[in-house]
Amino acid sequence: MIYFDNAATTKPSVNAVKKAEQFINEEYFNPSALYRGGIFCAKEIAAARESVLNNLGLSSANYEVIFTSCGTESDNLAVLCSGKRGIYVTDNGEHSAVYKSFTELTNRKIDTHFIGLNKDGSVKTDELFEFVKNNNVGFVSIVHVNNETGAINDVSFIADELKKINPSIIFHSDGVQAYGKIPFAFSDNIDMYSVSAHKINALKGCGALIKKRKTHILPLIFGGGQENGVRSGTENVFGIKIFQYAGEEHYSSLREDFEKVNNINSYVRENLDKNLFDILSGSNASPFILSVSAKGLRGEVIMHMLEDGGIIVGNGSACSSRNRHSRVLTACGYGDNVLDGVIRISFSTSSTLEEAKEFTVRINETARKLKGIMG
Amino acid sequence: MIYFDNAATTKPSVNAVKKAEQFINEEYFNPSALYRGGIFCAKEIAAARESVLNNLGLSSANYEVIFTSCGTESDNLAVLCSGKRGIYVTDNGEHSAVYKSFTELTNRKIDTHFIGLNKDGSVKTDELFEFVKNNNVGFVSIVHVNNETGAINDVSFIADELKKINPSIIFHSDGVQAYGKIPFAFSDNIDMYSVSAHKINALKGCGALIKKRKTHILPLIFGGGQENGVRSGTENVFGIKIFQYAGEEHYSSLREDFEKVNNINSYVRENLDKNLFDILSGSNASPFILSVSAKGLRGEVIMHMLEDGGIIVGNGSACSSRNRHSRVLTACGYGDNVLDGVIRISFSTSSTLEEAKEFTVRINETARKLKGIMG
Repeated sequence: MIYFDNAATTKPSVNAVKKAEQFINEEYFNPSALYRGGIFCAKEIAAARESVLNNLGLSSANYEVIFTSCGTESDNLAVLCSGKRGIYVTDNGEHSAVYKSFTELTNRKIDTHFIGLNKDGSVKTDELFEFVKNNNVGFVSIVHVNNETGAINDVSFIADELKKINPSIIFHSDGVQAYGKIPFAFSDNIDMYSVSAHKINALKGCGALIKKRKTHILPLIFGGGQENGVRSGTENVFGIKIFQYAGEEHYSSLREDFEKVNNINSYVRENLDKNLFDILSGSNASPFILSVSAKGLRGEVIMHMLEDGGIIVGNGSACSSRNRHSRVLTACGYGDNVLDGVIRISFSTSSTLEEAKEFTVRINETARKLKGIMG
Repeated sequence: MIYFDNAATTKPSVNAVKKAEQFINEEYFNPSALYRGGIFCAKEIAAARESVLNNLGLSSANYEVIFTSCGTESDNLAVLCSGKRGIYVTDNGEHSAVYKSFTELTNRKIDTHFIGLNKDGSVKTDELFEFVKNNNVGFVSIVHVNNETGAINDVSFIADELKKINPSIIFHSDGVQAYGKIPFAFSDNIDMYSVSAHKINALKGCGALIKKRKTHILPLIFGGGQENGVRSGTENVFGIKIFQYAGEEHYSSLREDFEKVNNINSYVRENLDKNLFDILSGSNASPFILSVSAKGLRGEVIMHMLEDGGIIVGNGSACSSRNRHSRVLTACGYGDNVLDGVIRISFSTSSTLEEAKEFTVRINETARKLKGIMG
């Protein structure tokens, strides 16, 4: 099997799972318990927090890590729980976790505003800065890597510019498709940053919100007061430890992996038959995501034909796969003919050039065949 | 090691974990993906839903299962998201997941009311019914099994009586310490019921809210629309499947296990030195939880002394272990002298009578020794 739907989810790291197994078989204690086993688990969670910060070059003096159940929960916590006054601003390229949280803000009678996208899915930063200059903006959320096109928004630059215009703004970024994948310098002006475990070869059911200590948020989930009072519920120790170990694997070779995946991406990009496919992802996009459109064909049909031959790709965001057309790609300005043909090819650090070669031959063949069938 | 803190968390079932491993190693797909692997995972989640309903004798025609990240999230979803008008009523014996959600309701200017407890931690049902008769009550949440004393509230009876008084009330029960442990007939008048995986030998990071289909709730977490739109976020397939398998193990021998644990509980209850210990749990309490108080001693000290000899017990709810005195036991009417000495002994289906015998000798010895030291 060639699995090229890694933006949807990744195969858990065998080593990370193995290292964490002790938290199922031996150290299964409740981290709130006051005996040795409980205290050990609490310390192991603290080490996982440090590890996440360390990966991003952040100090625990300024930042803290709130473990959550997923990237979606992290985004909700950031968007819904800061209690900030003023207009809430985001963009049309957000994952539904942020997008639908903004819909909920609207339901709660909070003013929201959406910034437009460039053709590659990146945010129109001039439009953003102009809006912030002319309005009483309290909160801004801009996705780091667009999960459909892979467009990278320079969120550190954006955060810096926003704070120059209005230092009181809270700036959040959904980093789910960036953490463990994209090398970048984390600006001190980013107040909150969402990450997810299962996108970097850890398990589903775990995520985190990285937050500046001085940025105040209220809980989304109330109870026993875990996670410094901000996220109650018995901690998912096993999931958190796998997340830590998988994160450390990724950051130990972040730049090499980035280059490797970049080569794989470039190979596919260059060898796709341009009579059959349009490339939607920009040249500066995350190498982990390559969005293309099969001209005059339906992406879903190609996806299923490839699957019959053991090749897995996605068609747009898994989280919105039940809608006919992608909201995000529609916002990029593409018409129905392009949207119908969308295929999202997404790589992992364990993808290989051999897979890319095989894949390219097969997807070209498949599209050609389908075109033939359709006359 | 003798582990008698199973109300805090349980050791994951080796068989359940083994059966679920395929969802890490092979079937790691995103359940929202539209190819075979994704559809397979979605079907496996659907089977887990059916299993949970089946365990409780419920039909999927009337009830649905919303998988969440923990019992706490399930409680929050039930209490905070029904949008019901009228007074919200609960009791002083709730786990902090419900209790703190009620505090949040108060912050949101919603009227709340708390019903008192009997000495054993059970809810004063006459007081509850009287209050509901005389007030415009919209929502009632009563814990099934008190997590500190083990007191069982007959939530089916309570639900039936409440609906006779006011059929429009939404009735929720936190069943975290009951599911997989207590045989009971689930009344059709229970609208929502929270359960947790890690209390029945599955993993931390998974729970569910069982909900009547006709009971409408809004999401707590917004996004991709998973869990029928009520709980977004990529599903924790591995955790959900272990929860299913562990639940099936429990329900395949529910009554036998109940009797077995009852015998273990009775043994400890009878053989604790009554000159040293007061029994706080009532005689009708869940056999899984036995709350006692060491007269004139500190429970925490005994807990640590026992730990040195390889015996693990709790002191009150793990989720509130950082407070000096239990809120719940205080509400039962106990004074400082009793509260200082509290030890929660809690069993699992794999606890044995041999452990109970060894335990009883050792805890009596320990308390006697401590009493000697203190003169």
